[in-house]
Amino acid sequence: MKKKWAVISTWKMSLQGNAKAADLLQKGSTAAEAILSGIHCIEDEPSYHSVGYGGLPDRNGRVLTDAGFMDGDTLNYGAVGALEGFRSPADIACSLAQRSANNFLAGPGAAEYAESHGFEKRNNLTPESYARYLEEKDKHEHLKAYQEHDTVCFIALDSRGTIAVSTSTSGLFLKENGRLGDTPMVGCGFYADSKKGGAACTGFGEEIAKGVLAYRVTQLMADGHSAMDAAQKAVDELTAELTERKGSCEQLCLICMDKDGNFGAGANSPFPFVYACEGEEPVLYLLEPGKSLRQVRPEDITID
Amino acid sequence: MKKKWAVISTWKMSLQGNAKAADLLQKGSTAAEAILSGIHCIEDEPSYHSVGYGGLPDRNGRVLTDAGFMDGDTLNYGAVGALEGFRSPADIACSLAQRSANNFLAGPGAAEYAESHGFEKRNNLTPESYARYLEEKDKHEHLKAYQEHDTVCFIALDSRGTIAVSTSTSGLFLKENGRLGDTPMVGCGFYADSKKGGAACTGFGEEIAKGVLAYRVTQLMADGHSAMDAAQKAVDELTAELTERKGSCEQLCLICMDKDGNFGAGANSPFPFVYACEGEEPVLYLLEPGKSLRQVRPEDITID
Repeated sequence: MKKKWAVISTWKMSLQGNAKAADLLQKGSTAAEAILSGIHCIEDEPSYHSVGYGGLPDRNGRVLTDAGFMDGDTLNYGAVGALEGFRSPADIACSLAQRSANNFLAGPGAAEYAESHGFEKRNNLTPESYARYLEEKDKHEHLKAYQEHDTVCFIALDSRGTIAVSTSTSGLFLKENGRLGDTPMVGCGFYADSKKGGAACTGFGEEIAKGVLAYRVTQLMADGHSAMDAAQKAVDELTAELTERKGSCEQLCLICMDKDGNFGAGANSPFPFVYACEGEEPVLYLLEPGKSLRQVRPEDITID
Repeated sequence: MKKKWAVISTWKMSLQGNAKAADLLQKGSTAAEAILSGIHCIEDEPSYHSVGYGGLPDRNGRVLTDAGFMDGDTLNYGAVGALEGFRSPADIACSLAQRSANNFLAGPGAAEYAESHGFEKRNNLTPESYARYLEEKDKHEHLKAYQEHDTVCFIALDSRGTIAVSTSTSGLFLKENGRLGDTPMVGCGFYADSKKGGAACTGFGEEIAKGVLAYRVTQLMADGHSAMDAAQKAVDELTAELTERKGSCEQLCLICMDKDGNFGAGANSPFPFVYACEGEEPVLYLLEPGKSLRQVRPEDITID
């Protein structure tokens, strides 16, 4: 049975934002309004070091952010990459999704668009994230897997039957100037089709992109897999392929939602996420490879 | 039966480059070497206004180029976006595919990488493309479908069984600063997996990306569709979905190759492409929606 509304989001850090999105959906807001409100909570919180304000900087000490948005009714998408100096990259991605061309802008062009369209500016580098940068910047000459790459992703189904998805991140800590991961790439980091469902990814962007993971999961749901099966199948397949071909696979985590609002999640490492739907308060789940999915209390887990 | 080698490329403009790639493959070159040599012929030719030297500029009169590369053995990919001032964006994308992170660089960061790695610089704006810019720049206030968006794409299978794909373009004429289309986006503009096949797209990037078209076609081949069926099915599906949802669909064209080197192509508008394999000289084909695929002579068609 189709749920009246539902919302799913990545990591424990999205708990408060998920509750806000759920409240808006209950009151009849659109999926887009709900997920952007949810993402703002994380973009504005300096203690989360992988998104927006307080995000960890690139090799040059600058916080460059990536974000994506897709409307599952129209398949319109918008994205920004390597954007410096704005409060909500996700809002800008959503704005870019309203046009018929020039939907994905990266670098100075993205900032020009944001400025000319009146989006709020903010230097996202905090004293705390800069201190962390100074401490770490010379330690990682041959970084393989960075830490701190926790993209916030929200997917919602609203009472009109629309599915929307949005993603926001400051990307890999100590990334190179202009590096884009999966987060702003439609199909890799996010995808939504109201007829099929939606998906979004977090983890090591360069690995996620090799499997075009968000689109893969959405298509598996369209082909009849349940959301949970589709999510785990896509993660397992890509983990196996990359391990076979190069001996290892970095972190892959994803959330998804079928067209009726049922949720799925897949990961090859411990992954907390939050889900709410009509009649159900936001619940924090912990997915651990090889174990049954379980509800946890926020104070029970240390992973943000 | 698996072909010893095969190469397919987009548009009539790729005829000479395809012959060069075919010659290299016959002599035992890798798929990567062959497709990059083929692409250089188009990147270096000023009379082709959609790729490299002589490319048509963006709204600010600058030629910003995009390119992608993927190795179907490892699934490693590289890409550059909004890159100004270099001779071969495809070479730089291929170089980026050799690393374990920071594989997709856009804007000034892409140029910094190219410069620090010794790639040849070149101002790709020619007097002819600048004159065209001056003539057209104020005529398109509400551009819907631009002209001149013909990405060069090459896919090859080599004698080792490796499939590789590469794309290169100057993007939409009069695009906004920093605009990225499908060309540098893995899954959208290009994809290759030596176990499944490869695909690459040209046309209106923002529409192609909505269907994550290159990955979609590759997966259809993996699911058992012939290359020709997969290509046309993917184009027809996306054309139908976008027409249903917004009343129209812009230009979608794609080439693909299955793991054995057999070719496919799909398009919703007239689309010439070139294919060669062991024992067969490069042949120019014209695909027209609703008509049978046919061989043509270069002098018979006006579409480049």
